Amino acid sequence: MTDTIAIVGAGLVGRAWAIVFARSGLPVRLFDLDADISGQARDLIAASLDDLASFELIDDPAGILNRISAVDTLADALDGATYVQESVFERVETKQQIYREIDAVIGAETIVGSSSSGIPASAFTGGLSANARYLIAHPVNPPHLARVVELVPAPWTAPESVDAAWSLMERVDQVPVRVNGEIDGFILNRLQGVLLDEAFRLVRDGYVSATDLDKTIAHGLGLRWSFIGPFETIDLNAPDGIADYVERLGPLYSGIVNSRSVRGAWDDDLVTPAVTERRAHLPQEKILQRQMWRDRQMMALAAHHKKLSDTSN
Amino acid sequence: MTDTIAIVGAGLVGRAWAIVFARSGLPVRLFDLDADISGQARDLIAASLDDLASFELIDDPAGILNRISAVDTLADALDGATYVQESVFERVETKQQIYREIDAVIGAETIVGSSSSGIPASAFTGGLSANARYLIAHPVNPPHLARVVELVPAPWTAPESVDAAWSLMERVDQVPVRVNGEIDGFILNRLQGVLLDEAFRLVRDGYVSATDLDKTIAHGLGLRWSFIGPFETIDLNAPDGIADYVERLGPLYSGIVNSRSVRGAWDDDLVTPAVTERRAHLPQEKILQRQMWRDRQMMALAAHHKKLSDTSN
Repeated sequence: MTDTIAIVGAGLVGRAWAIVFARSGLPVRLFDLDADISGQARDLIAASLDDLASFELIDDPAGILNRISAVDTLADALDGATYVQESVFERVETKQQIYREIDAVIGAETIVGSSSSGIPASAFTGGLSANARYLIAHPVNPPHLARVVELVPAPWTAPESVDAAWSLMERVDQVPVRVNGEIDGFILNRLQGVLLDEAFRLVRDGYVSATDLDKTIAHGLGLRWSFIGPFETIDLNAPDGIADYVERLGPLYSGIVNSRSVRGAWDDDLVTPAVTERRAHLPQEKILQRQMWRDRQMMALAAHHKKLSDTSN
Repeated sequence: MTDTIAIVGAGLVGRAWAIVFARSGLPVRLFDLDADISGQARDLIAASLDDLASFELIDDPAGILNRISAVDTLADALDGATYVQESVFERVETKQQIYREIDAVIGAETIVGSSSSGIPASAFTGGLSANARYLIAHPVNPPHLARVVELVPAPWTAPESVDAAWSLMERVDQVPVRVNGEIDGFILNRLQGVLLDEAFRLVRDGYVSATDLDKTIAHGLGLRWSFIGPFETIDLNAPDGIADYVERLGPLYSGIVNSRSVRGAWDDDLVTPAVTERRAHLPQEKILQRQMWRDRQMMALAAHHKKLSDTSN
C-alpha cells in the first residue's frame, strides 16, 4: 500500500514539501485554511516543477503534479494519510489551533511533523490525545533543494514516531537528523546564531565590512561546508585528524571564544552597521530579484550534487 | 613590465600559491630552505596541474609549469620580485628567522604577504627595515581552489602595501578581504571557531551526533553559504531583508547566545565525544583517502562555479 501524505498549510514551505513527497511517487493532499491559497497552490507548484525540470532535477513534472490534489477540508486531507507535514504560520496560537483540529480528525496511526523552525512541539501539542505521534520535522527552505530535516520530539513524542518520520524522510531522499530533546533553535539555527552573532560584532567593531565577511564564507569556509560539515572539515584538515587539529588549534579557538563579551541583545547598536551596508549594497527594491537569482543558484547547486552522486553510483 | 612573484616555502600551501600566480600568466620563483622540498616542488605542482586540467579548471598545464622555476637561494628568489608570498612553517621563531633574511635582501618596492593563519604580522616583523611592506595574506587551503585571501596589516604596515596586495590578488582572480587591525583568528577562523565551539557543546551535551550535526550544515546552511555569505543569506531570507529578519529572529538568536555558558578550554571533556565518533565513522588509516576525495569534490565545485560564472558573463 502506498503511503498518502497530507500537507497542512499551502504557503511557500508547504508547497515545497508537496514537491518533495510527490516527486518520490507518493500521493499528496494539500489543505490550507485560506481557500485562496489552496486554490492557487497547484498552479504555483506547476511553475516550480517547470523550473526544476529546466535544471534537470526532475524529469516528469506533469506526473508529479498529477499526484498532488488540493482538498477543501482538513478532514479530507487527513483521511487515510499516513503522514502529515504541518506548515502553517509560525505563531504559537496558530499552531495550537490547528493541532486541536488535527487531533479531532487524525487516524489511529498517522504521524504529524511540524515545519516549525523555532517553536518546540511541546508548546502546541500538550494535552492532545494523539500527541505521542506529533513532533518537529524542521526543513531548510526550500526543502526540495536543501535536504536536511531536523526531527525534534516533544517530551511525550514516542520514539517510534521519530523512527517512522526518519524512515519516511530517507525514503523521499531527504536527510533526517535526530535532535535529542527540545533546545532553542534546534541544531541548525543555533549554529547559524552563534556565527551571525560573531559576524555582527566583527562588523560593528570595524574589523571588516559585511561584504568582505560574506566573502570569507562564500569563497572560503562555505565551500567545504557545502559537501562536508564542520566536523569532517577539521577532521580532514590535519594529518592525523580531528584530535590532531584540536591539539594544534584548540588554544586559539578557545581563546577567541573565552575573550568574547557575548551578553546583550541583537539591538540597533549591534546590527545597524551590517544592515546599513547591506541596503547600500542591494537596494530594498532589488531583494526579490536577488531572491530569484539565489533560487536559480540553489537549483544549479542541487543539479551539481545530483550529477556527482549519479556519477559515483 | 610583468610582475615577478617569489614563493618562500614550497610546502603544500606554497606550491598552491605558485599555481595561483602562474596560471594568471606571472613568472614564479620558488624557494625553500629545505633543498629536498625545493627539488620535488615542480614535480608535485605538475601532478596538481594535471588534476586541475582533468576538471577543465586550466587549459595549458605545460605552459603554467614553465612559468614556475625553483631557485637555490632566497636572494635569487627575491631578485626583482614585486611580490613575495611567504608560506613557511607556522611557528613564530621560524617566521622571525625568515623575515630577518628577507629583510636583508628585499628590493626597494617589494611587498611581502604571509600565509600565516593565526600568528599576526606584528609578532615577526617588528623592527625590520622594510616592515611597512609586510602584511598577512592568509588563504584558505588550497588557495587555487578556495579564492578568499584575508589581508591583515601590522600596526606599521603602510596602507599602500595593503592596496598593492589587494590589486594583485584581484588580478590573479583571488578574492581579497580587508581585516582592519590584528585580531586573533582574523575573520574566517573566528567564525569557524564560534561555530565549532557550539558544535562541540551540542555533541558533548547529547543533543545531536557529530554525524547528524555535519548534515545540518552540508545539506542545509552550507549550501547557501557556499555562494552567498551569512549576511546575504539572512538578507534574502525575509521579505523585507535583513532588518526584517533580525526583527523576527533576533530575540531567538540573542537568547541562544546569552544562554550559552561559554567559558572553558577545548579540553577532553568537550571534544572527546565528537573525536571518538569521527574515528568510529572514518578510521585513522582512511583519512588520507578521504582527503583526496575532498580535493576532487573541491575541484568539481570550483568547476561548477567556473561554469556558472562563464555562463553569466
